[in-house]
Amino acid sequence: MKIAVIGATGTVGRAVFAEFQPRHEVIEIGATRGAHCVDLTKIDSIHALFKSIGQVDAIVATAGHVHFGELSQMTPEQFRIGLDDKLMGQVNLVLVAQQYLNDGGSFTLTSGIVGDEPIKYGASAAAVNGAIEGFVRGAAIELPRGLRINVVNATMLEEAREAFGPYFRGFEAASGARVALAYSRSVEGLETGRIYKVR
Amino acid sequence: MKIAVIGATGTVGRAVFAEFQPRHEVIEIGATRGAHCVDLTKIDSIHALFKSIGQVDAIVATAGHVHFGELSQMTPEQFRIGLDDKLMGQVNLVLVAQQYLNDGGSFTLTSGIVGDEPIKYGASAAAVNGAIEGFVRGAAIELPRGLRINVVNATMLEEAREAFGPYFRGFEAASGARVALAYSRSVEGLETGRIYKVR
Ligand SMILES: NC(=O)c1ccc[n+]([C@@H]2O[C@H](COP(=O)([O-])OP(=O)(O)OC[C@H]3O[C@@H](n4cnc5c(N)ncnc54)[C@H](OP(=O)(O)O)[C@@H]3O)[C@@H](O)[C@H]2O)c1
Ligand SMILES: NC(=O)c1ccc[n+]([C@@H]2O[C@H](COP(=O)([O-])OP(=O)(O)OC[C@H]3O[C@@H](n4cnc5c(N)ncnc54)[C@H](OP(=O)(O)O)[C@@H]3O)[C@@H](O)[C@H]2O)c1
Repeated sequence: MKIAVIGATGTVGRAVFAEFQPRHEVIEIGATRGAHCVDLTKIDSIHALFKSIGQVDAIVATAGHVHFGELSQMTPEQFRIGLDDKLMGQVNLVLVAQQYLNDGGSFTLTSGIVGDEPIKYGASAAAVNGAIEGFVRGAAIELPRGLRINVVNATMLEEAREAFGPYFRGFEAASGARVALAYSRSVEGLETGRIYKVR
Repeated sequence: MKIAVIGATGTVGRAVFAEFQPRHEVIEIGATRGAHCVDLTKIDSIHALFKSIGQVDAIVATAGHVHFGELSQMTPEQFRIGLDDKLMGQVNLVLVAQQYLNDGGSFTLTSGIVGDEPIKYGASAAAVNGAIEGFVRGAAIELPRGLRINVVNATMLEEAREAFGPYFRGFEAASGARVALAYSRSVEGLETGRIYKVR
């Protein structure tokens, strides 16, 4: 399969890239690094990416920022950061890149454990993750040509413990390699509308 | 209790107003009609409302538009309608109106069955409802002073069958009076972070 991994230069993306790389043609895509670059918040940038790499069999997104902060101090502008970046980035990708997926191809998006399991400072992240999962359930039944869409909802990665550990005290981490299996299950399986949880 | 119902002039809001009215001081609030008006998409308008009505014991929101349309034709701008209106309207309300709630007071927001149960044209609605529910789970653990927050996720109302029936073929409807009970349970109970489903 020809698989585009957007966010492949990040913590989750590197693990996903490593899982697919031995048996597929994997395209490494970042915002500023990688074999190709894209900005998912810009529609034109998404078109330009696929004009450059051509039709693919699977599109994986492991990109997206959200704002973490105290609810009582959070401004609507801060709340919107995650809607504009992590949510609309992935929604833009699905709306625009349907046409660049071969018949039967798949989207695999990324949400995260915050949403199911609330943490301090996580109200905006929880909203964004809930939105992505609702969107995936909704989009799955409408995609044409046997196209599929799933989402991976993982706990904190072991590789991210140094950066995120203080936010996730008491949470068990999962190795990037274990999390990457869920992306493989989505891309190489036949299901659609699924939320794969890795805990 | 002194209860502000925002969206009280609408289909869901009228039923909620009728449930509370016999035993509470209920304030009927709409966008263009009702005893008071507010535009939840405008921060200043929310402050002006509460400066006018004063502190309350409960705030219920039954307001919010989303765009229904075919996924393959949906533009990012159309997708954003529901994020800006139904999602950010209710998020703005929580961010701004915390300060106008008495200790132990509650927010009760509104999502809907689309999100759990996908329908044709409903991908954006599903995202918005998922976001509201994630937000409520996240916000519940951070609200200060014993403030609570829940969300009601109802099926189509019998009173809305004429307007929405074609989108919800095969779905059972619920009476407004039954749906209003879930709002009562949120406002007059003690739970927080709950998603009350009415099917
Ligand atoms: N890390 C975890 O433990 C964990 C667990 C569960 C879920 N998640 C979720 O997984 C996603 C990725 O997390 P991460 O820790 O891997 O992040 P990360 O290390 O910061 O990597 C982000 C990746 O996305 C790319 N990127 C950033 N902005 C972009 C844009 N506008 N358009 C396209 N690509 C963009 C980056 O490219 P450059 O390298 O070129 O900047 C990079 O490849 C996040 O949404 C996060 O919430 C993470
Ligand atoms: N109807 C159903 O069967 C059903 C079922 C489940 C969930 N829901 C959800 O419940 C919510 C309300 O639905 P509905 O059918 O009751 O809608 P509706 O009949 O159109 O009523 C909307 C209400 O919200 C007010 N409003 C509109 N825009 C506003 C704004 N920007 N700021 C503050 N108030 C605003 C309206 O005021 P004016 O009257 O002054 O315009 C009206 O009171 C929606 O989010 C819907 O998705 C509805």
